[in-house]
Amino acid sequence: MAIKTRFTELFGVEHPIAQGGMQWVGKAELVAAVANAGALGFLTALTQPTPEALAKEIARTREMTDKPFGVNLTILPAMTPPPYAEYRAAIIESGIKIVETAGYKPQEHVDHFKAHGVKVIHKCTAVRHALSAERMGVDAISIDGFECAGHPGEDDIPGLVLIPVAADKVKIPMIASGGFGDARGLVAALALGADGVNMGTRFCATREAPIHENFKRAMVENDERGTDLIFRTLHNTARVARNAISQQVVAIERAGGAKFEDVAELVKGARGREGLESGDVDHGVWTAGMVQGLIHDVPTVRELVDRIVSEAEALIRGRLAGMVS
Amino acid sequence: MAIKTRFTELFGVEHPIAQGGMQWVGKAELVAAVANAGALGFLTALTQPTPEALAKEIARTREMTDKPFGVNLTILPAMTPPPYAEYRAAIIESGIKIVETAGYKPQEHVDHFKAHGVKVIHKCTAVRHALSAERMGVDAISIDGFECAGHPGEDDIPGLVLIPVAADKVKIPMIASGGFGDARGLVAALALGADGVNMGTRFCATREAPIHENFKRAMVENDERGTDLIFRTLHNTARVARNAISQQVVAIERAGGAKFEDVAELVKGARGREGLESGDVDHGVWTAGMVQGLIHDVPTVRELVDRIVSEAEALIRGRLAGMVS
Repeated sequence: MAIKTRFTELFGVEHPIAQGGMQWVGKAELVAAVANAGALGFLTALTQPTPEALAKEIARTREMTDKPFGVNLTILPAMTPPPYAEYRAAIIESGIKIVETAGYKPQEHVDHFKAHGVKVIHKCTAVRHALSAERMGVDAISIDGFECAGHPGEDDIPGLVLIPVAADKVKIPMIASGGFGDARGLVAALALGADGVNMGTRFCATREAPIHENFKRAMVENDERGTDLIFRTLHNTARVARNAISQQVVAIERAGGAKFEDVAELVKGARGREGLESGDVDHGVWTAGMVQGLIHDVPTVRELVDRIVSEAEALIRGRLAGMVS
Repeated sequence: MAIKTRFTELFGVEHPIAQGGMQWVGKAELVAAVANAGALGFLTALTQPTPEALAKEIARTREMTDKPFGVNLTILPAMTPPPYAEYRAAIIESGIKIVETAGYKPQEHVDHFKAHGVKVIHKCTAVRHALSAERMGVDAISIDGFECAGHPGEDDIPGLVLIPVAADKVKIPMIASGGFGDARGLVAALALGADGVNMGTRFCATREAPIHENFKRAMVENDERGTDLIFRTLHNTARVARNAISQQVVAIERAGGAKFEDVAELVKGARGREGLESGDVDHGVWTAGMVQGLIHDVPTVRELVDRIVSEAEALIRGRLAGMVS
């Protein structure tokens, strides 16, 4: 049972499935489970309070798996940015060979990683950003559609159109992100021209995801309509699970634009450290994608990955081959 | 060369591709070309000024093809509705055996068509509406995602998520609409659980589409970002090609909601009768979907359909089969 693509070749993993960076969720337990299932998981660097803590988390992951895994480094413009160079050094010194970058102007980081033999996959939400990253020398692209949890960008182009448009222009391996959670999505992504998929929300609804059961239950209960786009008026759109707070933010924005200060208190992340512990899905906002509509259970990571790959094989060899025979 | 699905079986056509109702575009020339290419085209009833004119257009189409084709009847709430019962009678008396319904409360129409042995495919934008139509007794569903031209509804669920969620619940044959224009999209739709695709914008950019060359050229030139959503504040969202007028409407709506009267003069359809003749793509608004980003030429309908089907077969037997072998 295997699906081989340029992604599995490039990164030396068994399955064309990634679990990219997720703040507060990308920790050793989940990433090791993903690696052991034959997919490519990423620790999230900034989930760790310091570069030293990240080095320890990398070591802790290694105790749980001997398979490849990576680290995500998301670069956000900030008044007081985190010590990116030190996080970068911790990643390289820990011997990590795969990094997912995301966000704002990654050139300096890409150069440094490449100089140390690290393969870089860059996550972005627009074809022009993918091409820019390709020119910067990254090894692969993770292109993220409108369906996704977190930041979909401001163009609102879903994967059905974004993936083939990108595939026509991007030459390096590319995986698709946003809206993926089952075998049907994986085969669709491969048909549209991607070399695999990234899943975020779907991996959050697994036994090993280090988040409170209440969030997992909410993702199972919510349907595809259970998300909101907030911060649109701030040009920093985020897709979050719909709850009373997200609806309040939407109402404030609809009433004529909002300043960040107007909503900052409201949006304190329920999935932040406190939220993770309290499990209060109605307090603050937390990210979830439209793929909630396709999440009906909370399996182990291995059960999930095995199911997706075996069903995808059956879909290709059975349903699709049958239609053309 | 053929792809057989429940759609091709149900409607007795060669290929799992439909050209659903498009106001001002769904005329004999296009529909006959689609039928002759082995796909399923639909005349648009309300494009004809009277039921008598529709009967003549059906007869005119029959002169150009002996293959099956259908008629679209879109039901919109209106102060002075068109004489729907008379259009319906013209369709039935002309011997049409396939109808596409769309819009508001189609029960009466569905009942009447079914009583006269007409197969009905109902187009809708939400899973709950698809299930409601299934309960009404329609024979098939055309489910329309956020990517589409015209009216995507208010839920904003793209096909990548909408199609598999619908496929899990809808039992009758279902085709997918919105964002489709090439073989990759067709195979993705089949993988996601649909029995075929509907294409609108893509069929407008063919030699036989009865619209001014300027619109076809604009669809080739526009990329996937070249659309706007208007009338969102009126809860009657429409996706149109981006131009100076659509941007003005968006600005009026952003500035705090708009009444229809505020924008009615602006949005006079460039693709209405006058627009079709003048070819002025900057006058008024005209519908186009995100699939513009995948349209690079203006082939004949037959070239388009043959290309999609043969490339889809190659994609299934080649790329996808190769990944699992």
